[in-house]
Amino acid sequence: MGGRCYSKLVACLKKTRLLAAAAGGAATIYSSSPVAATSSDENPQTLKTRLCIIGSGPAAHTAAIYAARAYLHPILFEGSAAPGGQLTTTTSVHNFPGFPDGIPGPDLVDRFRTQSLSFGTQIITDTVASVDLSASPFKISSRSLSVHADSLIIATGATARRLHFPGSELFWNRGISACAVCDGASPIFRNRPLAVVGGGDSAMEEAIFLTRYGSRVYVVHRRDALRASKMMQSRAMADPKIEMVWNSEVVEAYGDEVLGGLKLRNVVSGEVSELEVSGLFFGVGHDPATEFLGGQLELDSDGYVVTRPGSTETSVRGVFAAGDVQDKKYRQAITAAGSGCMAALDAEHYLQELGVQEKKSD
Amino acid sequence: MGGRCYSKLVACLKKTRLLAAAAGGAATIYSSSPVAATSSDENPQTLKTRLCIIGSGPAAHTAAIYAARAYLHPILFEGSAAPGGQLTTTTSVHNFPGFPDGIPGPDLVDRFRTQSLSFGTQIITDTVASVDLSASPFKISSRSLSVHADSLIIATGATARRLHFPGSELFWNRGISACAVCDGASPIFRNRPLAVVGGGDSAMEEAIFLTRYGSRVYVVHRRDALRASKMMQSRAMADPKIEMVWNSEVVEAYGDEVLGGLKLRNVVSGEVSELEVSGLFFGVGHDPATEFLGGQLELDSDGYVVTRPGSTETSVRGVFAAGDVQDKKYRQAITAAGSGCMAALDAEHYLQELGVQEKKSD
Repeated sequence: MGGRCYSKLVACLKKTRLLAAAAGGAATIYSSSPVAATSSDENPQTLKTRLCIIGSGPAAHTAAIYAARAYLHPILFEGSAAPGGQLTTTTSVHNFPGFPDGIPGPDLVDRFRTQSLSFGTQIITDTVASVDLSASPFKISSRSLSVHADSLIIATGATARRLHFPGSELFWNRGISACAVCDGASPIFRNRPLAVVGGGDSAMEEAIFLTRYGSRVYVVHRRDALRASKMMQSRAMADPKIEMVWNSEVVEAYGDEVLGGLKLRNVVSGEVSELEVSGLFFGVGHDPATEFLGGQLELDSDGYVVTRPGSTETSVRGVFAAGDVQDKKYRQAITAAGSGCMAALDAEHYLQELGVQEKKSD
Repeated sequence: MGGRCYSKLVACLKKTRLLAAAAGGAATIYSSSPVAATSSDENPQTLKTRLCIIGSGPAAHTAAIYAARAYLHPILFEGSAAPGGQLTTTTSVHNFPGFPDGIPGPDLVDRFRTQSLSFGTQIITDTVASVDLSASPFKISSRSLSVHADSLIIATGATARRLHFPGSELFWNRGISACAVCDGASPIFRNRPLAVVGGGDSAMEEAIFLTRYGSRVYVVHRRDALRASKMMQSRAMADPKIEMVWNSEVVEAYGDEVLGGLKLRNVVSGEVSELEVSGLFFGVGHDPATEFLGGQLELDSDGYVVTRPGSTETSVRGVFAAGDVQDKKYRQAITAAGSGCMAALDAEHYLQELGVQEKKSD
């Protein structure tokens, strides 16, 4: 859990060429075919490409599969730490269509990666430090490499915020989760008391969603009032299965094989009590990975990339965004994959137009 | 090609319960669990449900997977003729993420279907004849069955128009296709002369897209001028690989194992000539399956269901649309699946709101 499935990765690499070893601070580049993007004369560490993709989850790799099949020879930065996105933190994925028996998250991501490599994507195992979107070609720079790209797809995802206390790591995926839609249907939660931590809209949504599985849903909140909208509050309050636990924070999770309960501290009285639950869901928000953009794309108030609804276009022409980095509503692997495909087709379309303009200006 | 993979279907059915046999004109109903929707008192042929889904492709089944996992007990009409959607007409799908070695289209659809059954979707093998969306619950009627549903997802897809001439069936999927993005990357088209039939924007897009694979792309058009927009025309005309074949129609396809060439008839002179090509792509449009709606949902000028961009909401509250029936831009299996998930979550959200309103009005 949390890491990539390295045995599979090694098997996959046997079929691919390792183009540049990670030595002397250089990035590792994987490709199944000769490098399409060439080094520029002035700097041997600069690659040129029609399309660069940043990310390593379903959105990034689906974009890469479509772009590679369209001979755009995409270069994909997968990052150097824990590539694969949020899917790698889940044990078993049951809601990705095509896998009726479920599939471990890391295995699913490995399949995406193998598929995008097989069509000719160049994968760089390095983290993007900065981008320059002020002019085309866009400049994407990691510690050791710079890529000049005619178009760019941002698919860096978002991270569900987790709280940390004794037991929070131990029971992760064994009762503790950050996504009710993804994990709520698991048998371990059926007709059991469950808890949600948080006081905003997403915590209320998680709680309401969980009422169909659990026998009871406690909402544990640090304060004595909710941040959630009036509508979400009244919806949650009206539900007979939901019970508020005010002024409280989780200080410990306990159990045997799986989560058995929580120790809660009342932040007013200091008293510590126990709450028997089989599930704990963090509803404390997500952090989209947009800091590296340095304010060069329009973001919403929560830091998500703004895209034109129904497309993947961002505020900068030629830059597209897909997956959770631009979606705080659906956040599913399959919706991310769908938007990755859209981004590749949008980029493809943009490059076609650009091609005509280049010809005209000749 | 064209049909479902019946051996797999039979294997899948062994694990499921056949709830009502196709006898005396009754519909066949498949379910992995006891019927959640109950017959109403006044009519034993009427089922009630929170959510009804019409369709049998990736959008419909992804919606069903999500809805079933959320315990909405969805009822899905898959139709009685050739369920499975456009995927069942393709031999091998290489661009659906998660299948690095490709997968036969019918097998992929069987996997979707098995998955939505396994979570509790009730599948009705009957074709919807009419719907009544004038009030909630919506009424969905097939030949033998009526479903009353609090919410509805339309995922009936679209059909690529095909032309018919001697050889057009024989070489379907052996050189003849209706989707350049889906099939263009196949090795049988690489560096070979290809042809596109059509004169509109989508034919021009197909032709431009195919220039990266083929050695030459002929656009065969019945008239001496294009219907395509000025921009698409100029883009196609500017491409040195594209050649127009005016005033011509395909009268025959020939070849050995795979397509080898076309016989073209000049509609002005009547002269028949041969054109050696390894690929023929129909770019003559799509027909969304929206006739059964009887004008009760807002459609665009091409007959597609209009959805609010970035969501799956239609013009009627509680009715959602997903997949190709509402998408003439991307039309891919993975984008359809993504929008199917969105539709289920949108419906789920709507039903939550409805629940609150029902409670209030009590």
